[in-house]
Amino acid sequence: MYKFSRNQRVSAIMKLLVENPNKIVNLNSFTELFNAAKSTVSEDIFIVRDTLNRLNMGRIETVPGAAGGVKYISGLPEEKAKEYAKSLCDALSDKSRVTPGDFLYLTDLICNPEIVHKAGLILASAFSDIQIDYVITVETKGIPLAYEVSKLLGVQLVIVRRENKITEGPSVSINYVSGSNRRIQNMSLSKKAMKKGSNCIFIDDFMKAGGTAFGIIDLMKEFESTVLGIGILVDNVQTPKKKVHDYISIVDLIEINEEGFAKLEPSKLFK
Amino acid sequence: MYKFSRNQRVSAIMKLLVENPNKIVNLNSFTELFNAAKSTVSEDIFIVRDTLNRLNMGRIETVPGAAGGVKYISGLPEEKAKEYAKSLCDALSDKSRVTPGDFLYLTDLICNPEIVHKAGLILASAFSDIQIDYVITVETKGIPLAYEVSKLLGVQLVIVRRENKITEGPSVSINYVSGSNRRIQNMSLSKKAMKKGSNCIFIDDFMKAGGTAFGIIDLMKEFESTVLGIGILVDNVQTPKKKVHDYISIVDLIEINEEGFAKLEPSKLFK
Repeated sequence: MYKFSRNQRVSAIMKLLVENPNKIVNLNSFTELFNAAKSTVSEDIFIVRDTLNRLNMGRIETVPGAAGGVKYISGLPEEKAKEYAKSLCDALSDKSRVTPGDFLYLTDLICNPEIVHKAGLILASAFSDIQIDYVITVETKGIPLAYEVSKLLGVQLVIVRRENKITEGPSVSINYVSGSNRRIQNMSLSKKAMKKGSNCIFIDDFMKAGGTAFGIIDLMKEFESTVLGIGILVDNVQTPKKKVHDYISIVDLIEINEEGFAKLEPSKLFK
Repeated sequence: MYKFSRNQRVSAIMKLLVENPNKIVNLNSFTELFNAAKSTVSEDIFIVRDTLNRLNMGRIETVPGAAGGVKYISGLPEEKAKEYAKSLCDALSDKSRVTPGDFLYLTDLICNPEIVHKAGLILASAFSDIQIDYVITVETKGIPLAYEVSKLLGVQLVIVRRENKITEGPSVSINYVSGSNRRIQNMSLSKKAMKKGSNCIFIDDFMKAGGTAFGIIDLMKEFESTVLGIGILVDNVQTPKKKVHDYISIVDLIEINEEGFAKLEPSKLFK
């Protein structure tokens, strides 16, 4: 049988942990994969842990007990996160991004895997200390980011629909008032989509008055579930009265000025 | 200055490559990060490459030239892919999944990051030999899978909308006939969303008669762009006349029988 060297083992362990963030990996799966002793694998993990610490690229936690093992918690160094928020502000200040009606075109960014992955790392890190069962989002544009956060936190994603769909089976629908233009809107979620009594966070790409976030909190009540946190990519801070107050964002949209330029700043997360 | 050991370097290189699939990483970024000679880093990469080969967990390609470097190509061992397709069939055969009207409830699976990641690995591997600019999907349920494939292939995701949205700026809309119930439907894509003359693949969670895929091919013509491949999670092979023929799927839905059970099989990819 092939004998793996320490170099090979540590690199493979890093890969398997990074690909399964926030999931407990039992040491037995490594001893079997490499046909190595538990003490050997423990030393390997020590090296992987030390490497992550030195490079500030996430961390490894040990989970004791029979069902225990190690798990990888993702993270982005503070200065990289700051740099990222600044570059996002720059990208969004391009004049061509303001569309008729003073909307900010975000779609290319929230569909760019590199950009979404980093935003996901920032939001997942911010919520890594709370225990949640689900990451919730509402279709459509927040889905890639919410998926990335759910993957990094090792939990299921739940996508709330704008209308009831026949493929979803029995659903719960609520009406809510969109905060900015005061229109009555609908959101709908299959009863199969989540267990009652769950904890979750809500992730979206953009917040104006917070009507959607407020609607999600309401909808979660129908599932006897609680929204423990809200994470947003771009917060329009121009809107004075928000319907929710406890949330974090990555960048703040300060204004769209008279010349049609958007002015943005990294959020208070980076101050 | 801290001197990184080979163990530390190989594990960190593995992490950085795995987190940036199909992206060329210049060796200088490693020599700078570790303050190490290029020859040292080349040896490190040799070890990482060898580890991936031995464990059959993807591969590393060298890209020559001034803008060259190395890139990680993701992959899943054949037997793991087969195992995965079988377990997906089992999960989908649960009676509770058939909703009134004989629809198969997929939503929890296509929102589960572990399941989506593996499906993404299978579809990305199937298309890793063709050069594409975009992964296209249409809202809503295919988005997590299409995002995962776009990330693994290192390209931008494009989400086609069901209706024209004011936040998207000038858009191209087309009508198409849904293959199964022959209803006329709409799809819409912002003109900013993609460059003309692009190559892309279309990814979706479910195919019935292929009307949506056919519509996407039509929409892409409006962008002077070409669909080079189609990848689907679940193909309803019960539908006799498909509107598209050149596509791959992971599992096939054979039938929903009279007792209300869905019968599924791994697709021909695994034969």
